[in-house]
Amino acid sequence: MTYCVAMSLAEGLVFVSDSRTNAGVDHIATFRKLHVFGVPGERLIVLQSAGNLATSQSVIGLLRQRLNGDGEHLYTVSNLFAAATLVGDTVREVLSRDGGATLTQGVDLGCSFLLGGQIRGEAPAIYNLYPQGNFIVASEDTPYFQIGESKYGKPILDRALSYRMDLQQALRCALISFDSTIRSNLSVGMPLDLLAYKADSLEVPTGYRVNDGDAYFEGIRQQWCGGLRDLLGRLPAPPGEYWR
Amino acid sequence: MTYCVAMSLAEGLVFVSDSRTNAGVDHIATFRKLHVFGVPGERLIVLQSAGNLATSQSVIGLLRQRLNGDGEHLYTVSNLFAAATLVGDTVREVLSRDGGATLTQGVDLGCSFLLGGQIRGEAPAIYNLYPQGNFIVASEDTPYFQIGESKYGKPILDRALSYRMDLQQALRCALISFDSTIRSNLSVGMPLDLLAYKADSLEVPTGYRVNDGDAYFEGIRQQWCGGLRDLLGRLPAPPGEYWR
Repeated sequence: MTYCVAMSLAEGLVFVSDSRTNAGVDHIATFRKLHVFGVPGERLIVLQSAGNLATSQSVIGLLRQRLNGDGEHLYTVSNLFAAATLVGDTVREVLSRDGGATLTQGVDLGCSFLLGGQIRGEAPAIYNLYPQGNFIVASEDTPYFQIGESKYGKPILDRALSYRMDLQQALRCALISFDSTIRSNLSVGMPLDLLAYKADSLEVPTGYRVNDGDAYFEGIRQQWCGGLRDLLGRLPAPPGEYWR
Repeated sequence: MTYCVAMSLAEGLVFVSDSRTNAGVDHIATFRKLHVFGVPGERLIVLQSAGNLATSQSVIGLLRQRLNGDGEHLYTVSNLFAAATLVGDTVREVLSRDGGATLTQGVDLGCSFLLGGQIRGEAPAIYNLYPQGNFIVASEDTPYFQIGESKYGKPILDRALSYRMDLQQALRCALISFDSTIRSNLSVGMPLDLLAYKADSLEVPTGYRVNDGDAYFEGIRQQWCGGLRDLLGRLPAPPGEYWR
C-alpha cells in the first residue's frame, strides 16, 4: 500500500509520501514515491505515485528519459494542465504496453498520481490523476488530494486544513495525518519523503527524507498523542441519560 | 454503509452504532443497528449489525421469534460463546435460504455482527462474527471491535483506548471515533444508538439515542475540533532541513 498527500494553499504547496511497498505482508520493500522535475526560476513539477509499482516506475522512467528528446516533455509543456495530460497519456501508454498481454492474470496494473507544482506565468496547482489517465484539479474549497490508503489520515485534514493555513501549520497537519495512518496500517511506513514549495518562488527544492527516529517527527508524534489523550480527558462527562 | 464499535473493558462494555443505511447515495434510510436481548439479573446480549440489511434483519427477526420456542435460543444459551455460535448458525441459515437462489445476481448478501454482553457466572465479553458465521473474541490486548466503515474512526481508538480506561472516558472516545467517521463519510450518519453496561451489574440498559443536535454530543464535537486545532498550532515549527 501507499499513502501520499498533496496540498495546494495560498502560501504554496506541500507534498508528503510514504515509501513502503508490499506484495503481501511477507514481501515489504522501500521505494521512493515522490519524484521531482524542475528548472530553477522556471518550473517545478512534483509527482507522487500509488498503485502498481511496475507501472508507476515505467511512467516515471519514460517521463525522465524523454526530458532529452525532441517530443513534448515535462520541461517543455507550457502549463500544468498540459503536464497532467502528458502524464495521463504516459500512463495509458504503459498500460497498453503491459496490460494488453494475457499474462496479467488478474493483476491490477493500475496506478494513481498526484501532480503539483508551478510553471512560470501560472499559479501553483495540484492535480489528481486517476488510473484511467484523466484528472481533476484542486481548488480553494478542496485544497488537498490523497492517494493510496487515505482513510485513516483524512479526519485531521477535514477538521484542520484550510486554504489560508500557513505552510508550516499545513506541513505539521500532513505529518500528523501520516502518523495516524502509520499507526493504524502496517502497509504504510517510514521513511517519509516531503517537499514544501513557496508559491511564486520558482525554486526547485530537493525535499527532505524523514527517517525512522527523526527527532522532530518523533517529538510531534509524542506531543500529539499525549495532547489527544489530555483533550479526551478534559471533555465533559456524558449526562445521565447516556447511561440508561 | 454502517459504523459500529464495541468495547470490552475492565469496568464493563460500551456499544455505539450509527443508523444510516444506503443503497446508493440516492437511497438513504435510517434503521436501528443495535439490538438488545436481556433478562434482568441474569443476562444481557447486545447485537450490532453491518452489511446486507435484509440478511441482518432476518437474523435478528429469527433470533427474536425463537425466544418463545422450544429450541435453544438467546435466553437459554448457557454462555456467550454459545450465543455467538447460535447467531453464526442463524446467519448461515439465512444465507442458505436467500443466497442459494439464482436471483442474488451478484448482490452481496453478507453481514457482520458484533455480539457482547454478560451471562451470570461468566465475565462480560464481546465477539466479532464474520459473514461466514465464525467469530473471534476480544481480549485485554485488543479490547475493541469495529464493523462497517472502520478506518476513519480507528486512529483515535488506537491512540487512546485501553482496557483499564474508565467507562465514561471510553464512551467519549467512542463518540469522537464516530464524529471522525461521520465528518469524512456521508454513508455513516446520525442518529447514534449507544449502550453502556457496568460489569457484573446484570442490568439490561435500554440504551440512549443520540439525535442530531444532541446538546452533549454537539458540545464535545465542537470542543474536540477546537482542541485539535489548538493542539496542531502548539506543535513546534519544522526545523530548517524540512524546507530544503
